[in-house]
Amino acid sequence: MTERTLVQKLASTPDGPVRVAGWVETVRDQKKVQFIVLRDETGAVQLVHPRTDVGENPVDDPIAAQISALTHGTFLSVEGELKADERVKLGGLEVKIGSVDVAGVAFPEPPIADDSSIDKRLDWRFLDLRRPEQNLIARVQTTFEHALRTWWIDNDFIEIHTPKLMASASESRAELFEVGYFETKAYLAQSPQFFKQMAQPAGFGKVFEIAPAFRADPSFTSRHATEFISVDSEFSWIDSHDDVMKVHEQLLIAGLTAVKEKHGEAITAAFGVEFEVPTAPFPRIPLAEVRRIVAEGGYEIPRADGDLDPEAERRISEWVKANHGSDFVFVTDYDSSIRPFYHQRHEGDGSITKSYDLIYNGAEISTGAQREHRVDVLIEQAKEKGLDPEELEFYLDFFRHGVPPHGGFGMGLARVIMLLLGLPSIREVIYLFRGPNRLEP
Amino acid sequence: MTERTLVQKLASTPDGPVRVAGWVETVRDQKKVQFIVLRDETGAVQLVHPRTDVGENPVDDPIAAQISALTHGTFLSVEGELKADERVKLGGLEVKIGSVDVAGVAFPEPPIADDSSIDKRLDWRFLDLRRPEQNLIARVQTTFEHALRTWWIDNDFIEIHTPKLMASASESRAELFEVGYFETKAYLAQSPQFFKQMAQPAGFGKVFEIAPAFRADPSFTSRHATEFISVDSEFSWIDSHDDVMKVHEQLLIAGLTAVKEKHGEAITAAFGVEFEVPTAPFPRIPLAEVRRIVAEGGYEIPRADGDLDPEAERRISEWVKANHGSDFVFVTDYDSSIRPFYHQRHEGDGSITKSYDLIYNGAEISTGAQREHRVDVLIEQAKEKGLDPEELEFYLDFFRHGVPPHGGFGMGLARVIMLLLGLPSIREVIYLFRGPNRLEP
Repeated sequence: MTERTLVQKLASTPDGPVRVAGWVETVRDQKKVQFIVLRDETGAVQLVHPRTDVGENPVDDPIAAQISALTHGTFLSVEGELKADERVKLGGLEVKIGSVDVAGVAFPEPPIADDSSIDKRLDWRFLDLRRPEQNLIARVQTTFEHALRTWWIDNDFIEIHTPKLMASASESRAELFEVGYFETKAYLAQSPQFFKQMAQPAGFGKVFEIAPAFRADPSFTSRHATEFISVDSEFSWIDSHDDVMKVHEQLLIAGLTAVKEKHGEAITAAFGVEFEVPTAPFPRIPLAEVRRIVAEGGYEIPRADGDLDPEAERRISEWVKANHGSDFVFVTDYDSSIRPFYHQRHEGDGSITKSYDLIYNGAEISTGAQREHRVDVLIEQAKEKGLDPEELEFYLDFFRHGVPPHGGFGMGLARVIMLLLGLPSIREVIYLFRGPNRLEP
Repeated sequence: MTERTLVQKLASTPDGPVRVAGWVETVRDQKKVQFIVLRDETGAVQLVHPRTDVGENPVDDPIAAQISALTHGTFLSVEGELKADERVKLGGLEVKIGSVDVAGVAFPEPPIADDSSIDKRLDWRFLDLRRPEQNLIARVQTTFEHALRTWWIDNDFIEIHTPKLMASASESRAELFEVGYFETKAYLAQSPQFFKQMAQPAGFGKVFEIAPAFRADPSFTSRHATEFISVDSEFSWIDSHDDVMKVHEQLLIAGLTAVKEKHGEAITAAFGVEFEVPTAPFPRIPLAEVRRIVAEGGYEIPRADGDLDPEAERRISEWVKANHGSDFVFVTDYDSSIRPFYHQRHEGDGSITKSYDLIYNGAEISTGAQREHRVDVLIEQAKEKGLDPEELEFYLDFFRHGVPPHGGFGMGLARVIMLLLGLPSIREVIYLFRGPNRLEP
């Protein structure tokens, strides 16, 4: 391993010999002295080389020639003398170059610039990811996920890996990707819904999964992707969807606490966002009341089915922030008509479900519910939705050999990160975005 | 949430009122007294009900009727009186039933029994998973993965989620699943190889991913699946594949230490396995020497290409165990002819690569290597393997705009767990196995 000091660590490193390694961000090739700004995954540092091939007694200077030839983006490892120097704007220190090892030369012309369009940047995503903001996004996501998993583990959940290849549809025939599978065909899972529910009759009690899901959704909005990371959890012995919300909010508090601690300042510096770690309970408002509030605010939801559209989500989120001081709101008790057949309905009123959407900073990030575990009711509800119970046999079997009451939620990872950082599109936060027109790189 | 005491916790719970919840493992419906063995995700407990509808002064006994009607596998929640009693074989305690809430009734006849074939058990995997051994496997895997991720996080690796939908092949055209993708087609990633390498020119430094990978491999061996969980890591600024092995062994030590601490005794009890946490360095033996050792042991490898077959892997593993006391061995410096084009070759000898396979308890679990990062060499090696560089353009671009030396490995999660527990097939350890003939449930 190249023994190197990360740029972030230089400030706490005493003056003296160091090795740093990264890529060339800029070169200032001046007459008497040359400067390189070298960036690694933790920051940028100024490297300096006073030329010896100029002035009154010029001598050969192979390093000067090396530096003059450097192209932006070239990776190199530099050994030199670290010196704290308050006059240096970049971190108050610089490294006087002793030797330069070029590890990987970059083509002279970088194909993108800071002001390139998002589409162009996605074409060259591996260069776009070099921007410090992109590195921070990746670290924020890493910290967030690890905090979620640690919360689950501390609370005795089992991690599962559900299959992404299925013989039949998971939720609906629409928006399914079809896969050639030997002599037959398969489908890509739109969600782990059925399989995470399976863990309940399997007696696992409490499970979680963070994994890709696939939707052949031809839309081009800022919040849709054909492949996305779904954060899922499902657990037994709940009394209602309120128990699901309780787990959900604790989990988010754990995730956001970790992000705030580790990256709070960096997030504010990079994105101008000062986010607060929420406290439980998050406000809970039934959908019917949300509709009233939004209508009273002067907005008529243009959807015929009574579901919230993005503008209504934005408005209720704003209202909750103003009236309850919360960035999160659970919109509960969705109409049965706009929920899948497996959501359990209220005992007294079959027209509404024991379900919720979680809205965060103006957009929906998650859907949760208690599941219907009584197989006869489940079959009735499937039929009512126009589904053929015969095609659901493998799923219905889960409920025929004993099953506890259970529920859970699925949450879009990229949406959470996008909304946390106040970014305009999930394309900014996904490592390699996949959309109807984008399969590369 | 149903407030319940997990069976595991009963031993440390004082005598008195408790609620337990789980499924019926057995019912002994005797004349004067009824017994239920109730299992939850942590263990089994005996519930007892002395009948009141028999004897000299019989009174109505609705609970007795409830118990008589119970089917195996039914989920229920029981409130009663916990009492320590040394005479009770099952854990030295029992719960005298106060009331029974049936949550989910099971069909009378369970479709599988303990001695059902693996194929039949996989048909009813959600019932098979109720076996305590299966629950333990899921917990061992959970602990192992979390320890890996924690090691990565502690060592400042970034978690990435690479896309599983690709426009072109990741390694070879063979064994690729094709997906209908709007007006065009896509392929399922066989590994995150190209995309995790992309994190290096992206300046991420060190990355990891645990995610599904897909191979249209028609074989039916005990170690192959068409969908499997791949444990991947990739990092910059290595000097050779030895640096990759150093990371790999530290990671495995972290994972196995956690498993030993949390589940060591349970593993021995359930599987008769007493595994040792390995120490670094694991033995490293070049492939050429492994061939000699295996040949000297009297086994002629039947493969024409000089690669190890499963029997040779078993034999070298046995030899290393006998001669070095290690369950692990890195077989290094594979012939260039049997390695992919992107493995870096030795400076002095282009016929061998800076690569390794890791063999554990008799079978290969992982392949690692330093990657070729010089684009001209990479193109030459691709051509030599009969690949068309034009089809690899998006990948070759990663190396044209600056890239540090790097390497990494991919490891099959199910294989590690199978070999750790001494199980005969990965089908026993995968939540829902996918093979050429199996897409359900």
